[in-house]
Amino acid sequence: MKKLINKPEDVVVEELHGIEAAHPDLVKVHYEPNYIVRADAPVKGKVALVSGGGSGHEPMHGGFVGLGMLDAACPGAVFTSPTPDQMLEATKAVNGGAGVLHIVKNYTGDIMNFEMAADLARGDGVEVESVVTNDDVAVKDSLYTAGRRGVGITVIVEKIAGAAAERKHSLKEVADIARQVNDNGRSMGMALTSCTVPHAGKPTFELGDDEMEIGIGIHGEPGRTRMKLKTVHEIVEMMASAIVDDLPYKSGDQVLAFVNGMGGTPLIELYVVYNELHNFLKGRGIKIARNLIGSYITSLEMAGCSITLLELDDQLQALWDAPVKTPGMRWGA
Amino acid sequence: MKKLINKPEDVVVEELHGIEAAHPDLVKVHYEPNYIVRADAPVKGKVALVSGGGSGHEPMHGGFVGLGMLDAACPGAVFTSPTPDQMLEATKAVNGGAGVLHIVKNYTGDIMNFEMAADLARGDGVEVESVVTNDDVAVKDSLYTAGRRGVGITVIVEKIAGAAAERKHSLKEVADIARQVNDNGRSMGMALTSCTVPHAGKPTFELGDDEMEIGIGIHGEPGRTRMKLKTVHEIVEMMASAIVDDLPYKSGDQVLAFVNGMGGTPLIELYVVYNELHNFLKGRGIKIARNLIGSYITSLEMAGCSITLLELDDQLQALWDAPVKTPGMRWGA
Repeated sequence: MKKLINKPEDVVVEELHGIEAAHPDLVKVHYEPNYIVRADAPVKGKVALVSGGGSGHEPMHGGFVGLGMLDAACPGAVFTSPTPDQMLEATKAVNGGAGVLHIVKNYTGDIMNFEMAADLARGDGVEVESVVTNDDVAVKDSLYTAGRRGVGITVIVEKIAGAAAERKHSLKEVADIARQVNDNGRSMGMALTSCTVPHAGKPTFELGDDEMEIGIGIHGEPGRTRMKLKTVHEIVEMMASAIVDDLPYKSGDQVLAFVNGMGGTPLIELYVVYNELHNFLKGRGIKIARNLIGSYITSLEMAGCSITLLELDDQLQALWDAPVKTPGMRWGA
Repeated sequence: MKKLINKPEDVVVEELHGIEAAHPDLVKVHYEPNYIVRADAPVKGKVALVSGGGSGHEPMHGGFVGLGMLDAACPGAVFTSPTPDQMLEATKAVNGGAGVLHIVKNYTGDIMNFEMAADLARGDGVEVESVVTNDDVAVKDSLYTAGRRGVGITVIVEKIAGAAAERKHSLKEVADIARQVNDNGRSMGMALTSCTVPHAGKPTFELGDDEMEIGIGIHGEPGRTRMKLKTVHEIVEMMASAIVDDLPYKSGDQVLAFVNGMGGTPLIELYVVYNELHNFLKGRGIKIARNLIGSYITSLEMAGCSITLLELDDQLQALWDAPVKTPGMRWGA
C-alpha cells in the first residue's frame, strides 16, 4: 500500500487537522464527535444543510462546507458511515432556527444513522427534513444499498440546495428543490483500477491489466459488467446511453453535465471524456448549459470517472450560478 | 496502459476540444498552431501573459487562461515543448499594445523555443519580456535542464503576475514581480508511482512496491534519492527541510504554502501532507499566511506530491488575493 499517510487509523483525524489549519476563514472543525461547520455557524434564520458519509470521497463532503453550500459535514472512517452522535451534534451546532436539512446518500448505514440522528434532534426541538440521493443507474441494489446508490448528484444537490437556503427559502422549499435535483439527475461510474482502504491495506478488488469495470460504486462495489478496456469514445457511449435512456433525457433538454474523476485520474483525461460526452449529447439533441469537470466525489486513488447529468430549469440554473465559497468549490465570492 | 483516451496521438487535440466545449465563456482555442487565449483577448492596454509547455501537467497551463492570470497558453505534445510558431502566434494574438510577458519553465526545449518566438515577435514589433522559473531545489541539473527545474512556483507566478497585469502595471513592473516570486519561491516533489506517457505506452520509470523517489521532476526525471517508503511525517520533513534551508526561509517569515498533487494522489492525502507541513513550519517559526492545496501542476497520473513555498510581502499577498477567473483557479469573480 503506497499512500502519503502515517498510521491508517490516524488518516481521517490528521486530514481534519489539515482542513482546520488550511481554512480557518471558511470552516471550524470539532473533534469527538468529528464534524466540520461553517466558520459563521449557526446562521440565524437560514435553513442549515448537513451531510456526511464515509471519508475517502474528498472534497465531498467536508470540502463543501461554507457559504452557499453545506453548513456542516460529518466524516466517518474511510468508506464507513458516520455515527448518529456526529450527525446529532452537527445538526444542533448549525441550527439557526429555520430547520435543518439532512442530505443523505443512499447507503444502508448512512440512512439508518441519519434517521436516528434526525429523531434525536427532533426530540431536542430541532425541525429536521431529510433528502436521500439515489442517482446511480448502474445497478438496482448493491453491496451496501437497497435501491440505487447515491453518487454524483449529491455534489449538485449540496450546491443547489445550499444556494436556495442562502436565499432564505423555507425548510420545505429547500427540501423540495433538493428532491427535484435528485429526481432529475442520473449518474454512472467506471473504474480502470481499484483503490485501497488504508485499514485494509490491499486493493478492494482486482482488475486485470486490460480490464475495466463499468457501473462501479464509489466504494468499489461491483458494477454492471467487467470487460476489456475500450476507447474513451466507447466508454462514454456506454455510460451516457445508460444515463440518458434512464430518465429519459430528451432532445431539446438543457442539462448540467458533470464529469467527475475518481481520485486517480488526471484532468487531461477528464477533458477528453468531456469532449466525448459533449459530442454524444449533441447527437441526441441535448444541450449542455452548465458543466463541472474535476474530481469532486472520489474513491481514494481509484482511476476512472463518472458522469452525472441534471435536467435544468431556470430556477435550478440560477441556483447553480449563485455564489459559493467553500474549500472545494468556489465562484462568485 | 490504462487511460481514458482514444488514440495516443489524439489526446492533446481531443483535450483541447473538451476545453473549448466546456469553457466558451472563458477561453477560445486555436488549432494548428494550438493555443488557448482568453475569450476577450487581446485586452487593450494590458500587459499580456503567455506561458506554455508540454501537456500532461493540467490544469497548468491551459486551465490558467482567463481574467487575472494568463492571456494565452501553448500546449505541446505530452511532456514535449510547444513549438516557436505556437508561441509566436499566441503572443501576437494577445498583444494589447502594452507588451507581452513570456513565463517559461526552465527546460532546455522550452527556453530555446520561447527565445526564438520572442525574437520573431520583436521582429514583428511586439515588445516581449521573458521570465524563467527555476524553483526546484531537488537537483542542480537534470535530464532536460541546465540549472534548476521550473515547477510549482510557475503556478504562483502566473497568478500573481496575472493580477499585476490586470492592475495595468507596466511590462517591466509585471516582469519584476514575476521574478520576485520566482526568486522567493522554492519547491520539491516526490513520487510514489511513475506515470505513463500515452505515446510511450509504458511507465517512464520503475519503482518497487515499497519504494518512493524524493526530488522527482514533473516529467519523471530522476530526483535526489530513491528509498523505501516512509511515513508522511518523515517525507514532509525531508522535503520541507530541503526547501526551507535553501532560500533560507527564517523564523518570522510569512509564506504561501502550496501542497500540490501529482495527478494520481487523492485530496485526502494532500490534507494529511498539509497538516505535516503546517506543523513543520510552525516548529521553524514560519507562518503560513496563504495556502493552495490541490492538483495544479501534475505529471499525468503519477501518485505523489510537491511542496512549494513563497515568501510573501504585502504586495504579493494582495496580488494573490485578487480576483481570478479561469477554468482551473477561481475566486472573487
